[in-house]
Amino acid sequence: MEIAKVRQDFPILFQTVNDEPLIYLDNAATTQKPKQVISAIENYYAHDNANVHRGVHTLSERATKQYEEARETVRAFINAASTKEVLFTRGTTTSLNWVAQGFGDQVVEEGDEIYITALEHHSNLVPWQQLAKRKQARLVYLPLTEEGSVDVTAAQTVISSKGKILAVTQASNVMGTINPIKELAALIHAVGGYIVVDGAQSTPHMTVNVQQLDADFFAFSGHKMSGPTGIGVLYGKEALLEQMTPVEFGGEMIDFVYDETATWAPLPYKFEAGTPNIAGAIGLKAAIDYLNEIGMTEIQEHEHQIMRYLLPKIQEIAGITLFGPTDPEKRTGILTFNIDGVHPHDVATGFDMEGIAIRAGHHCAQPLMRHLDVHATARASFYFYNTQEEAEQFLVSLVKVKEFFTHGLI
Amino acid sequence: MEIAKVRQDFPILFQTVNDEPLIYLDNAATTQKPKQVISAIENYYAHDNANVHRGVHTLSERATKQYEEARETVRAFINAASTKEVLFTRGTTTSLNWVAQGFGDQVVEEGDEIYITALEHHSNLVPWQQLAKRKQARLVYLPLTEEGSVDVTAAQTVISSKGKILAVTQASNVMGTINPIKELAALIHAVGGYIVVDGAQSTPHMTVNVQQLDADFFAFSGHKMSGPTGIGVLYGKEALLEQMTPVEFGGEMIDFVYDETATWAPLPYKFEAGTPNIAGAIGLKAAIDYLNEIGMTEIQEHEHQIMRYLLPKIQEIAGITLFGPTDPEKRTGILTFNIDGVHPHDVATGFDMEGIAIRAGHHCAQPLMRHLDVHATARASFYFYNTQEEAEQFLVSLVKVKEFFTHGLI
Repeated sequence: MEIAKVRQDFPILFQTVNDEPLIYLDNAATTQKPKQVISAIENYYAHDNANVHRGVHTLSERATKQYEEARETVRAFINAASTKEVLFTRGTTTSLNWVAQGFGDQVVEEGDEIYITALEHHSNLVPWQQLAKRKQARLVYLPLTEEGSVDVTAAQTVISSKGKILAVTQASNVMGTINPIKELAALIHAVGGYIVVDGAQSTPHMTVNVQQLDADFFAFSGHKMSGPTGIGVLYGKEALLEQMTPVEFGGEMIDFVYDETATWAPLPYKFEAGTPNIAGAIGLKAAIDYLNEIGMTEIQEHEHQIMRYLLPKIQEIAGITLFGPTDPEKRTGILTFNIDGVHPHDVATGFDMEGIAIRAGHHCAQPLMRHLDVHATARASFYFYNTQEEAEQFLVSLVKVKEFFTHGLI
Repeated sequence: MEIAKVRQDFPILFQTVNDEPLIYLDNAATTQKPKQVISAIENYYAHDNANVHRGVHTLSERATKQYEEARETVRAFINAASTKEVLFTRGTTTSLNWVAQGFGDQVVEEGDEIYITALEHHSNLVPWQQLAKRKQARLVYLPLTEEGSVDVTAAQTVISSKGKILAVTQASNVMGTINPIKELAALIHAVGGYIVVDGAQSTPHMTVNVQQLDADFFAFSGHKMSGPTGIGVLYGKEALLEQMTPVEFGGEMIDFVYDETATWAPLPYKFEAGTPNIAGAIGLKAAIDYLNEIGMTEIQEHEHQIMRYLLPKIQEIAGITLFGPTDPEKRTGILTFNIDGVHPHDVATGFDMEGIAIRAGHHCAQPLMRHLDVHATARASFYFYNTQEEAEQFLVSLVKVKEFFTHGLI
């Protein structure tokens, strides 16, 4: 990967913030879009915009073709068996809520167990809390290893014949730790349950193969992988999507509407009520094409390289608490840390003064904050367009911010 | 309104389809976007893209400011009392489904009545069918006048003390007929019920004032008013939104997440789980700014002018069945018709050969098709960028298509 060439596709990166060159390290929140993605959206609106599926006129046929090509691109990207298994949603949050409501409500009964982990983003936690409440099922947190991934050996002793759903993130949005999805799938399948995978933080950063993972459901968002906001994906195995009930009702998803009742359209349309985010799907296709051109292995290796450089260096700095595994191969490009005695919000503000965008807070993962025994952390998250020089500047600024707030006392 | 000047903002209109200049008359399905809207999306992605609300860095603050400015623009556009009453959704379909699930499930009980009409789009019908099923409530169709709007006098005799919800479209997506929302609101309020208004086909074409209408809930989509796909609005009175439960759970919408349960954020965030369609909201703001600059009264008058010209002319052509009121003031710019003996899909294909985009089918309104005693219709729908010349060409092509398919027999 020629990083200088890649960066030319991201004009947003070439600006100053507080008189310093911008270093964007908030990629776990949302990523920047290459001009190819912005152009794809622009071209669609400027040449082909029409509503999809229901029209026989030329523009509608062109829009439909592009929208369905986007679905095929997504299918190939995650290696789904069929485009019937690829639903466009508003994002990961909607995808996970749909599974909890449309599938969870069907298979979970009173006294059943739903497994989650303290690593989950609220979007893969609160829907299951609600489902457990509706069904009087038990919500069980799977044990974590010291490094902060799901402990498969310990999970084996927890998962029982009452297990119906195992909802787990493939990569933590706080620490970047990667979970052993395939092994967890085998465990829950052995008791006749289903695995629901939050792929929001993994899909942008590594090769995802839903068939190899044996994931029953898999969710991710466009905006975290250089695609547009407002578009996401829910993958589900065909037989399970057939069984799952739609959560939104309206145009396009019906087959026939009687006065008192209605029947549903075939997959994948059964779940896509109303006019979809057509431009969003087309933008997501452009993002996937872009990532594919660089190569997902290249992207992962680039992030590992940065982590290999940063992780030991940070541990050399006194007064910094680093969370998550110290082995770069076990994580994505996310660095979560605290400066002892300094509030993470102050840390983020300090970095912003240096032109560096990082995030601070609970990262929508309050249970994990309790697990780590902190209220909040600071998080710097890297993507393929971040450079070695930016990583170096991050370290310089980290020391500067630390010294500013601690007056050199730590 | 200088129409030639307006059209310059829509480069998409200046193309040929089947070697004829494109005439886009499928605006009830989706509308074209002026370059101001496309630029707003592009500028956001090229300069300010970041996730909203949770960040303290500069880009995040800029993105949050623009996203919340969009909410204020929507508030002013529909005259909501507060931005707390304006929720961003994926579109009208999501908005209506949320009301049916989050509010309907709370207020409707066994034996209660839910009023709808045969005019409803499936998105304002199927969610209420499902609610009625869940609650064993009665779904009651309000009677229509001969012209195809809700008959208020007859409705008065139907609405009973068991009435909890009246779900009605402000303008029919098939015939363009406008319903007397204010009067219907008074009827349902008198028995202690609530009115839910589908504004997808009215908001783009006339001034909407939710307080004057006394609407309890009001839904519309960006893409039908020259805004982007994937963004819509749900307006609700503040007290009712406080009462309503969230339908999607995840980041941003929570206040505190305990291991087993969670509490919700204040309005409007309680309903906006996950990363919103930030670029979509910003594009919608640009669309509203654009419509405001032309003026909603001007837009309505322009569509009326075209209807005043077309309605009498069409009635002069033998073998055409026209649906809906013949008084142009009683409708939006939608013309629904059939050529006797010709399938509407053939009609639409014939028009496409002439470069004219119209739609054919049941228009996601199967109950209305039964009411009209047809399987499908052809629909030409005009917007502010359509010209008198296009209306004239539409008539010429109508005769041509008719003669082609009927061999001059009708």
